[in-house]
Amino acid sequence: MITIKIIYHSGYNHTKKQAEHVKIGADKVDNTKVDLVTTEEAIKDIDQFANVDAIIFGSPTYMGSVSADFKQFMDASSSAWFNRSWKDKIAAGFTNSGSMSGEKMNTLNTFIAFAMQHAMIWVGQAELDGSPKEEPGKPDAINRIGSALGAMAQSIQLSPDQTSASSGDLKTAEILGQRVANITKKFKS
Amino acid sequence: MITIKIIYHSGYNHTKKQAEHVKIGADKVDNTKVDLVTTEEAIKDIDQFANVDAIIFGSPTYMGSVSADFKQFMDASSSAWFNRSWKDKIAAGFTNSGSMSGEKMNTLNTFIAFAMQHAMIWVGQAELDGSPKEEPGKPDAINRIGSALGAMAQSIQLSPDQTSASSGDLKTAEILGQRVANITKKFKS
Amino acid sequence: MITIKIIYHSGYNHTKKQAEHVKIGADKVDNTKVDLVTTEEAIKDIDQFANVDAIIFGSPTYMGSVSADFKQFMDASSSAWFNRSWKDKIAAGFTNSGSMSGEKMNTLNTFIAFAMQHAMIWVGQAELDGSPKEEPGKPDAINRIGSALGAMAQSIQLSPDQTSASSGDLKTAEILGQRVANITKKFKS
Amino acid sequence: MITIKIIYHSGYNHTKKQAEHVKIGADKVDNTKVDLVTTEEAIKDIDQFANVDAIIFGSPTYMGSVSADFKQFMDASSSAWFNRSWKDKIAAGFTNSGSMSGEKMNTLNTFIAFAMQHAMIWVGQAELDGSPKEEPGKPDAINRIGSALGAMAQSIQLSPDQTSASSGDLKTAEILGQRVANITKKFKS
Repeated sequence: MITIKIIYHSGYNHTKKQAEHVKIGADKVDNTKVDLVTTEEAIKDIDQFANVDAIIFGSPTYMGSVSADFKQFMDASSSAWFNRSWKDKIAAGFTNSGSMSGEKMNTLNTFIAFAMQHAMIWVGQAELDGSPKEEPGKPDAINRIGSALGAMAQSIQLSPDQTSASSGDLKTAEILGQRVANITKKFKS
Repeated sequence: MITIKIIYHSGYNHTKKQAEHVKIGADKVDNTKVDLVTTEEAIKDIDQFANVDAIIFGSPTYMGSVSADFKQFMDASSSAWFNRSWKDKIAAGFTNSGSMSGEKMNTLNTFIAFAMQHAMIWVGQAELDGSPKEEPGKPDAINRIGSALGAMAQSIQLSPDQTSASSGDLKTAEILGQRVANITKKFKS
Repeated sequence: MITIKIIYHSGYNHTKKQAEHVKIGADKVDNTKVDLVTTEEAIKDIDQFANVDAIIFGSPTYMGSVSADFKQFMDASSSAWFNRSWKDKIAAGFTNSGSMSGEKMNTLNTFIAFAMQHAMIWVGQAELDGSPKEEPGKPDAINRIGSALGAMAQSIQLSPDQTSASSGDLKTAEILGQRVANITKKFKS
Repeated sequence: MITIKIIYHSGYNHTKKQAEHVKIGADKVDNTKVDLVTTEEAIKDIDQFANVDAIIFGSPTYMGSVSADFKQFMDASSSAWFNRSWKDKIAAGFTNSGSMSGEKMNTLNTFIAFAMQHAMIWVGQAELDGSPKEEPGKPDAINRIGSALGAMAQSIQLSPDQTSASSGDLKTAEILGQRVANITKKFKS
């Protein structure tokens, strides 16, 4: 049995939807226990990550980087950093914003710097951009935004209980979750 | 009179087309002299940049960063770096690749690190993503990719003498050129 | 008269000390009004930045990026972003952490992505590493850490009312402040 | 038996020395075959990487990023990228420059973007900065520069056949090599 925690912050449910699809993907792999954890819950009990095999980070991109809520979780992990208690865990990440690029890469770079400070091992998004040539960014294409460091989604603002993330972006999140679970299994068993 | 050089490398004419549109935009500003320079020409005569007011960098994004040809130009500028001869010049950048994100932001970050080592002043792309909400990444929308550090374009591969860059991406390049010329004028006169 | 605000967060007074030296440098330039503002004060009144000529960002690097407190300020500026009210202002930044590199560059990259989203103009740290060859990182050398994107400092933890930042790092902060004031003056008058 | 290739470019032997120490570290792990490959050799035969278990990248940082020679190798790998032939290989990196920070982090970020485009798995430098508090950046301290994304070294220019890399930087390179070999073994066997 391998254990994975998906820790995320979501302001308007877009990143939450993405997180749920990362979980759907990871759950497809046998003998995995996958939990969704909000940053609020994580900050209250940072020790819950000490014994998991993989941690997947999810945050909206606000003003060019992770949200302040997600950053609070990052800062709250400094004792785990000092004790090296996340060393050699598998890490990955996903992010959402309102436009195609929108400096989302800086959020993924920030996740990676964070994971490397924790001596974790980084797994990215392995699918090539699946958009048809005549229709770049097609809503139902896998990795339509063309991101390798982690999974990206682009959403417009709908009502709070809805998400506008495209079917392709959500499928991309699933594939990331599945990939992380498979690699964790190979590495940890 | 202010002088601007646009230094670019282009493998399949996409970045060249973008460079030409940056020039179209800069030429719209009165009393500017704007030259297009290929990396090949630039490397032969790196001193040609010593007396210009602004330098705009353009490169395709290959394998996650500037092309090797563009990097040769960067490395060839080390004497100018040592002599601080580009200090306080205005700098900006643009890049093209086959997908929406495609780690193009790392190319712009690399331009910025380079410009800062030369003690230049960085001007980005100031337009918000102009895509209609119901159609993110719309081909004719200004800054449809949603990049702030510089101008991004996404092109598919057509025949060598054609470019597939969208009308929005080319218009975005023009606006960047115009902005750089205006700011250079304000700063240098 | 040009106006500059230095907005900073400081956990253990190291970044505060750095901020004070940025102000010392900016104050050396005639006809400048320079204010220090904490993130706490800034968040309460984000409109205070609307009419200044330059904004200088300062944050410790915690877990590979800006502190959560500084990120709260960044997120609180989203209305100014939407209204483009910081457009064409001069921007610069500085950061401190416990080791030489310590991923401080990601903090500066995050400042730059933020400034570019606000359509600001970025000014970096223009001095070459002044360390003697036989003693790299010498405490009293200008830009001893060798950063171009902004000013870096390295501090160890002393008592709360003391700072361990080296004399070279504080002098580097001063030079950044002076450079920003000079460039702002040239650009805004 | 696991196989590791260390692919590097070195202008003045500093990065070469670092590469040799990465190999020393990897060789300490049983049942590993570790080869040093220059970028020149690699470009002539890019297929040599298809069957190895791990690839470690090494480049000097020139003008804020990898050297043009190293970038040529990166660009030459585009067919391997298209065929996904490096997928799931372990990746890591190291870089050298003349100052402590010197934007070396952008070189490591560029390695990571490259590795992620190839769907590789990234392993960083896991040791905390071992400098004594009273002497940050001490030449014989492990990870004295404080880098987590990969191994950094700082060297001054001596005669071509000598290297000035500190004993701590070379030991840091060894530890990276050993870590990559151990993780590759765990993952690939």
